[in-house]
Amino acid sequence: MRQTQLFTRTKKEAPRDEVSRNAELLIRAGFVHKEMAGVYSFLPLGLRVLNKVIGIIREEMNVIDGQEISMTALQEKELWQKTDRWDDKNVDVWFKTALKNGTELGLGWTHEEPLTRLLTQHISSYRDLPVLVYQFQTKFRNETRAKSGIMRMREFLMKDLYSFARTQGEHEKIYASVRAAYKKIFERVGLGERTYPTFASGGAFSKYSEEFQTISDAGEDLIYIDEASGQALNKEVLNDAVLADLGLKRENLVEKKAVEVGNIFTLGTKFSEPLGLIFKDEEGGAQSVVMGCYGIGPGRVMGTIAEALSDEAGLVWPESVAPFRVHLLSLGADEKALEIYSALTAAGIETLYDDRDVSAGEKFAESDLIGIPYRVVIGKRSLESGKAEIKKRTSSDIETVSLEEIVRYFEKL
Amino acid sequence: MRQTQLFTRTKKEAPRDEVSRNAELLIRAGFVHKEMAGVYSFLPLGLRVLNKVIGIIREEMNVIDGQEISMTALQEKELWQKTDRWDDKNVDVWFKTALKNGTELGLGWTHEEPLTRLLTQHISSYRDLPVLVYQFQTKFRNETRAKSGIMRMREFLMKDLYSFARTQGEHEKIYASVRAAYKKIFERVGLGERTYPTFASGGAFSKYSEEFQTISDAGEDLIYIDEASGQALNKEVLNDAVLADLGLKRENLVEKKAVEVGNIFTLGTKFSEPLGLIFKDEEGGAQSVVMGCYGIGPGRVMGTIAEALSDEAGLVWPESVAPFRVHLLSLGADEKALEIYSALTAAGIETLYDDRDVSAGEKFAESDLIGIPYRVVIGKRSLESGKAEIKKRTSSDIETVSLEEIVRYFEKL
Repeated sequence: MRQTQLFTRTKKEAPRDEVSRNAELLIRAGFVHKEMAGVYSFLPLGLRVLNKVIGIIREEMNVIDGQEISMTALQEKELWQKTDRWDDKNVDVWFKTALKNGTELGLGWTHEEPLTRLLTQHISSYRDLPVLVYQFQTKFRNETRAKSGIMRMREFLMKDLYSFARTQGEHEKIYASVRAAYKKIFERVGLGERTYPTFASGGAFSKYSEEFQTISDAGEDLIYIDEASGQALNKEVLNDAVLADLGLKRENLVEKKAVEVGNIFTLGTKFSEPLGLIFKDEEGGAQSVVMGCYGIGPGRVMGTIAEALSDEAGLVWPESVAPFRVHLLSLGADEKALEIYSALTAAGIETLYDDRDVSAGEKFAESDLIGIPYRVVIGKRSLESGKAEIKKRTSSDIETVSLEEIVRYFEKL
Repeated sequence: MRQTQLFTRTKKEAPRDEVSRNAELLIRAGFVHKEMAGVYSFLPLGLRVLNKVIGIIREEMNVIDGQEISMTALQEKELWQKTDRWDDKNVDVWFKTALKNGTELGLGWTHEEPLTRLLTQHISSYRDLPVLVYQFQTKFRNETRAKSGIMRMREFLMKDLYSFARTQGEHEKIYASVRAAYKKIFERVGLGERTYPTFASGGAFSKYSEEFQTISDAGEDLIYIDEASGQALNKEVLNDAVLADLGLKRENLVEKKAVEVGNIFTLGTKFSEPLGLIFKDEEGGAQSVVMGCYGIGPGRVMGTIAEALSDEAGLVWPESVAPFRVHLLSLGADEKALEIYSALTAAGIETLYDDRDVSAGEKFAESDLIGIPYRVVIGKRSLESGKAEIKKRTSSDIETVSLEEIVRYFEKL
């Protein structure tokens, strides 16, 4: 894309009320726009990153035979009353609204209830199971505090996967496959090394749930890591009984601030029982389906990358989720740069071409702020020497590559 | 995809409260699920169709240099008060909700206000224009009646494009390019022949707006078509003055019921003025940006296809938006059918493989209901003759093709 065509402009400063580092950088670089506290629109560069995160998650959900659907935000009171999750006393994040005739509705903050009800129309026999269903869908959560930028939004996209199994044993196999998929997702988006599966409180149907926690000073959670085993646990379950259970010693644990980028839950029959999701087993007996749920917020992942990998100069995107792979800067060599831009684009190498009429200093600073993995500079010197300067965002080394070789350089990488 | 893996089941009957043909068929075939009146979830087959419609629209929006973003549902009262569109007396489709501290919020039913405000941060000079920005985003409309299935939903995805120009002349060029893109979109999704650009009432800044109306008995609009010129007008503007203006004669007009599948509006400075979207022209003078807006609901397009192209046996999808291209039925020849399925899939030919253990009659009936363009039957006879039977959903002719030639048959089409 040519930068003169991109409608967003970078800014020297973020809105004064913006206290989070991720939102400050993302707003300044033109990736997101703050509509109000906890509510952000995604602009062209930001939407490209978000869609790449979504694409990676979708691939991994399909690998484990997840079937994609899309449910609705509007929710019926009667349905949620059946599981005791309608009343604001029990669930404190509802946004409520109403039809013209006064019928109260809620805006979905999760989707166990509607999906369980939906599946009662499609599952009746052991032959219909197991099933994994997921969606990328907008959740609404009426957060009291929303000061973590796009890491805690009042309206946000969530990938929520739900699993439906015949037995606890079958559930555990699915749970393990989702767990492995999640590890792969966080590796692929560039957070693998700093992300730990972390024991947390479980709820009614299992001793623990697991969170995927990414080490970051912007995190709202405290976790304790046993570096030797790679195990971690959330502060909320840090006590002697749990430590004994997990075979961990308090003196080996390191405390870190972390962001919960994903979570996986065993639900048992907590939802299938009240909502009547029942199947006939091989002997003809009626059984409640054994469920699990598994969440990742693509926006939160993007925000966490912005927090964890950025530096003083700006954002730093891993190649897998970067809005473009190459940032091509023309410093007074527009004709040659346009030629290179066309060649890169024709070769399928995603390139943002800074063809604007601004100073070299401004181009360099904005390129660092935007954080595309490779910067290629074509200046007047290039025309004489026949060479371009290539620099990785994460390195200060500059490589010179002949103009004819630039496309091949990126094809070979 | 193997049909034994697909979690949805077809149904003999739709819910009793479902009065629209599109929803009845789509629910029975397992494409959508009704959550409540006017609120539908999209299941795997339905989401595949919806995504293909979205893909076609996106391609055509990108051709005319549209830049994709994604805005939010939650809307601030103060913003909409500036254009007098907050009060329920002026806008009767709002869903309203509130933050915990009591701050009233609305759920976006369109996005002129937030996008215009957003652009004040990025547009300041004539050099920043023109700009075309679009999104696929969920709209909420508190409809009193919602009885048209997925053609009129209370929560629905909309592609909304907004254009920002320096002058009325520049706006008109953009308007014409969007109009041409819309014609192409409706052709590509299979509705071209029955869809008419239709004059409708314009609003404050232009004499007319244009709707794209698709002829269908399920339509809520009445339009009048002049077959000779291909022009049409909505009943709401049918009067002698308008007829004279458009050079049409009442006696040449044919009345038809139609569905509004798209609309394009000239907005002038209706939003840029109150919201301060101003640019400096070449002489340094301050000018309000000239705007247009252009909508298509992908779900409504899908519903209209279901209404307009279906027959008594079920849905009929054009290839461009079909959930799969080929429906492969095994009638007691699973080994050979699996082989063909693998070959088709490997060749990139999207195939739904009915590998279920049900009767031939059931498979045929369900295949017609689901409406995939090509049905390929591998039965016991195929094993003897070495041939499969291929039938188009829209024809009763059956072609026999040798098993070795099936992949080539579809590659050549």
